Amino acid sequence: MNFKPKFTNFKKKVEDSFNRQQFMELIGAKLVDVKPGYCEIQVPYDQTLTQQHGFFHAGIISTIADNAAGYAGFSLMEESSSVLTVEFKLNLLSPGDGELLIGKSNVLKNGRTLTICRSEIYIRKNGEEKLCAASQTTLIELKDRSDKNETA
Amino acid sequence: MNFKPKFTNFKKKVEDSFNRQQFMELIGAKLVDVKPGYCEIQVPYDQTLTQQHGFFHAGIISTIADNAAGYAGFSLMEESSSVLTVEFKLNLLSPGDGELLIGKSNVLKNGRTLTICRSEIYIRKNGEEKLCAASQTTLIELKDRSDKNETA
Amino acid sequence: MNFKPKFTNFKKKVEDSFNRQQFMELIGAKLVDVKPGYCEIQVPYDQTLTQQHGFFHAGIISTIADNAAGYAGFSLMEESSSVLTVEFKLNLLSPGDGELLIGKSNVLKNGRTLTICRSEIYIRKNGEEKLCAASQTTLIELKDRSDKNETA
Amino acid sequence: MNFKPKFTNFKKKVEDSFNRQQFMELIGAKLVDVKPGYCEIQVPYDQTLTQQHGFFHAGIISTIADNAAGYAGFSLMEESSSVLTVEFKLNLLSPGDGELLIGKSNVLKNGRTLTICRSEIYIRKNGEEKLCAASQTTLIELKDRSDKNETA
Repeated sequence: MNFKPKFTNFKKKVEDSFNRQQFMELIGAKLVDVKPGYCEIQVPYDQTLTQQHGFFHAGIISTIADNAAGYAGFSLMEESSSVLTVEFKLNLLSPGDGELLIGKSNVLKNGRTLTICRSEIYIRKNGEEKLCAASQTTLIELKDRSDKNETA
Repeated sequence: MNFKPKFTNFKKKVEDSFNRQQFMELIGAKLVDVKPGYCEIQVPYDQTLTQQHGFFHAGIISTIADNAAGYAGFSLMEESSSVLTVEFKLNLLSPGDGELLIGKSNVLKNGRTLTICRSEIYIRKNGEEKLCAASQTTLIELKDRSDKNETA
Repeated sequence: MNFKPKFTNFKKKVEDSFNRQQFMELIGAKLVDVKPGYCEIQVPYDQTLTQQHGFFHAGIISTIADNAAGYAGFSLMEESSSVLTVEFKLNLLSPGDGELLIGKSNVLKNGRTLTICRSEIYIRKNGEEKLCAASQTTLIELKDRSDKNETA
Repeated sequence: MNFKPKFTNFKKKVEDSFNRQQFMELIGAKLVDVKPGYCEIQVPYDQTLTQQHGFFHAGIISTIADNAAGYAGFSLMEESSSVLTVEFKLNLLSPGDGELLIGKSNVLKNGRTLTICRSEIYIRKNGEEKLCAASQTTLIELKDRSDKNETA
């Protein structure tokens, strides 16, 4: 689909928001690409991110799925809006066994209040990428609401 | 519901598995309670766990929802089984604005292959608890599969 | 939870809306109970409602889950509002093998714009009820929107 | 994706199963296309299928989403297997306002026990098709289980 952003600097607004999320720094997540209605986030493997078998924890996979969707949707919202995840559903298709987690999300519908996204999370191992998880997310646009902590 | 565990040391098995998840250590998660078909996990607030407004990141909330469900289900499985999350769906009901995140999960159905759980995640602020998120999870029991990294 | 309806005749409004749904008549569904934040719908078995094994079709089960949630939420909305289902997720726990399908839904959170419900669908066979399905639903309240077909 | 069916007559097996579902006849659903890992089902508009505004009821939309996914997955299963829906999640994107409902489903992953599908449901009005709903479904393959009612 071909989406049109509502203001010129949508990309910088997404990057600023991402950079304010300290949890992204903790897990080493990188915002790799932002286009109107699209977002890609990557997380390199680290032992601190693992579950009991030494693979990426499902919590990391769902974090990336949620965040990629959130920023894919945010890229299409008003300059003065904030975004919240209403809900998401995630299917885990293969173990997160590899050196890089890659989350890509596309907006399916950008409504006046709600935005729906679909995301795919891939795991790269020895140069090959495999579908690791798939999710579907509902976002809500909060008009005239700052994306920063107002009391900060 | 009243569930019966399949072996005596189910609680120790859950604790050992939880302790092997390095991601739980990274985010400061504590396994607070395990009963047959029930699990509770808590995460104290830390700035490294936040989203752009300074609240608990949705990724932390979904991590706790997923893990509480996983171990609620695991408590009812065979001693020689491992557990995987098939999928889950999470509704975010209130911002994670508080000093402690509390995830509680109950098994709804413990089938031969699949186990279904419902979880509630509460946020405690100034001593008061508020429902922050609610999820529904499908788990699969992998018979005769080690819960450890076999190559380690 | 203890919810307060926003106007006296909420029950009649729910009944009128239910009665305008011709699909409820086709499948023989009955609105059995409406309270603030709660709704119960029943469907007696009929061969025309079956899947390949002769049990209630999953489509009937999801219809009842969706409608019970929709009207549980609708019972708490403004007199001048209409309701739409944003999304729902349904786990099928046991085959719909029985003589009566019973769907019960409770509001989990009634927000200004969105309302979240949880539903349980039971199957009654030889007088015994068994949990057949469980769902979680997001509804949106459309303010100042008629619940009738305006062009009718 | 390019899936290979496990036996020659997979299409006839899907058709036979569909034809045993009396609920499909009640709502006038037609099995339009079956390929390995793909299924399309259509339902022409009828007043008996409507919700309170006179549009297709969400129950019909979810029925089509569920059934298209079930048969997309069934097309890849063993000849002696039966299929059950474990769970699905459906986002309703636009009102079902039109003359034909078109459900298309594709298998995302066909595992040994579980199969995951994504479905899109379109509504056709005055010759134009619009995305009406999107879902994600988990199926389970029951090996050596008849797809018919064994007591019949």
